[in-house]
Amino acid sequence: MMLVNGEYKDHIPVADRGFQYGDGLFETVEVRQGQAVFLGRHIDRLHKGCQRLHIPTTSLDQIGFEIELLCSKFNTSSAKPSDCVLKIIVSRGSGGRGYRQPDMIEPSRIISLHPYPDYPSTYQEQGICARFCQTHLGLNPLLAGLKHLNRLEQVMARAEWNTPDIQEGIMMDINNHIIEGTMTNLFFAKNGILHTPTLSQSGVSGIIRSIVIELAHRYDIAVIEHTCDKNNLLSADEVFVTNSIIGIWPVKQIETTPYRVGMLTRRLQIWLDQLKKEQNHPNV
Amino acid sequence: MMLVNGEYKDHIPVADRGFQYGDGLFETVEVRQGQAVFLGRHIDRLHKGCQRLHIPTTSLDQIGFEIELLCSKFNTSSAKPSDCVLKIIVSRGSGGRGYRQPDMIEPSRIISLHPYPDYPSTYQEQGICARFCQTHLGLNPLLAGLKHLNRLEQVMARAEWNTPDIQEGIMMDINNHIIEGTMTNLFFAKNGILHTPTLSQSGVSGIIRSIVIELAHRYDIAVIEHTCDKNNLLSADEVFVTNSIIGIWPVKQIETTPYRVGMLTRRLQIWLDQLKKEQNHPNV
Repeated sequence: MMLVNGEYKDHIPVADRGFQYGDGLFETVEVRQGQAVFLGRHIDRLHKGCQRLHIPTTSLDQIGFEIELLCSKFNTSSAKPSDCVLKIIVSRGSGGRGYRQPDMIEPSRIISLHPYPDYPSTYQEQGICARFCQTHLGLNPLLAGLKHLNRLEQVMARAEWNTPDIQEGIMMDINNHIIEGTMTNLFFAKNGILHTPTLSQSGVSGIIRSIVIELAHRYDIAVIEHTCDKNNLLSADEVFVTNSIIGIWPVKQIETTPYRVGMLTRRLQIWLDQLKKEQNHPNV
Repeated sequence: MMLVNGEYKDHIPVADRGFQYGDGLFETVEVRQGQAVFLGRHIDRLHKGCQRLHIPTTSLDQIGFEIELLCSKFNTSSAKPSDCVLKIIVSRGSGGRGYRQPDMIEPSRIISLHPYPDYPSTYQEQGICARFCQTHLGLNPLLAGLKHLNRLEQVMARAEWNTPDIQEGIMMDINNHIIEGTMTNLFFAKNGILHTPTLSQSGVSGIIRSIVIELAHRYDIAVIEHTCDKNNLLSADEVFVTNSIIGIWPVKQIETTPYRVGMLTRRLQIWLDQLKKEQNHPNV
């Protein structure tokens, strides 16, 4: 189910700059019982991303309405509101000559709903197994942090393994600094302090990542963003990965190094669940 | 005029990974009097790019036939075969979950013809004016050299100026090494030796760039690929930029630094023209 610039269709012009150059941004949003979770934060990030890429944000005004329309249509199509994944893409639209953008930019907005992935509940409860990727992230301060459509690095990294016993690949940058998972942000705990790699040169600044940092502040847990290497990670007490669809997955093993699912990870999982409930039912 | 997987249409599925992730490659080819110039080299580069990105190349077998079809249709639609620009895009097609590619990859191929840009002949004859871009290229050995669809850096760089008196922007990497123009490769000459930036960390390895290097070898002109900085460029005797559509444009000014259009640039322009004629009329 999909809306392209407000119309029910599933294709875009070849001339769209999203296709020609990856000239755009996207958001992946959890939809629980018919409600888009942390939608305000996703739209806010989209706004900020558009500003950084100089894509006009006026078309974003309609996105909230269109998401509501699509979700309500999806909800009435099933017996009870089900869980799904909402993807929002905003591109710079068609036009311009070559890389040069047109004088009048008319961004494209694509809103689509997808089945919720069938991840076993054990991933959240007992943790996942991860590996280190051979594909290293480039250094690019201009684009670091943005959830843009230039994602060949992640595609190449995710193609490195095809075994169901590995759930995530951990990516380093070309200086061998740990940055993130292929589809997640990464945290680790050591002596009660939470650590996460700085994203000034590479990586995507995730919504759940920022929420985990906020929760740590709220509950007076020290959290440090810094340049991390493999040794920091391998000597950690706890490791977990985050994104908007999975929430928080403990990491129980990276290659041959085992980790326990610790108290800090458990508490953050609980606080994240509470926050989701508060946000979706603010009056309860 | 456009062929998408062999059909006359001008749209692709939103689900195409070219749109979702910039998961693909492209070529921009000059068409002179109905004939695609250096087509073999472009197809060869596309093959090599697909191999590096693990995109199956079987669908490329049909591209030659489809280009011929489209060009002949274009030629018969006008009184005499005219000049135009051929763009070829190959993406990994639709499917997969998230960044993970599908088990069976069915690449998309898009072949389109576009009007030849109306560049004044003075650009080739008297040279162009260039500026240095504020947008710096990231470092990414994985993707360096490839003409892939992740082109946000070039889009951002090209958006820096909008005055018709500047024809190209010169891009440095984040270490302030000179790499290329937004849409061109860069050469400079100093004391009769030709220099061009190495492209192991950033940049696109252009077809005309490789031909210029070949021509230099053929005519016994020393050519060095190395790490270049702004001072190398600003103290050069001659500067020129290359791509498949413009061929070779002398640079007559970079910001406030003037350059003469020198003998080496002129000779390379003549040899390039000769090579084009030889290739398109091998029996003449």
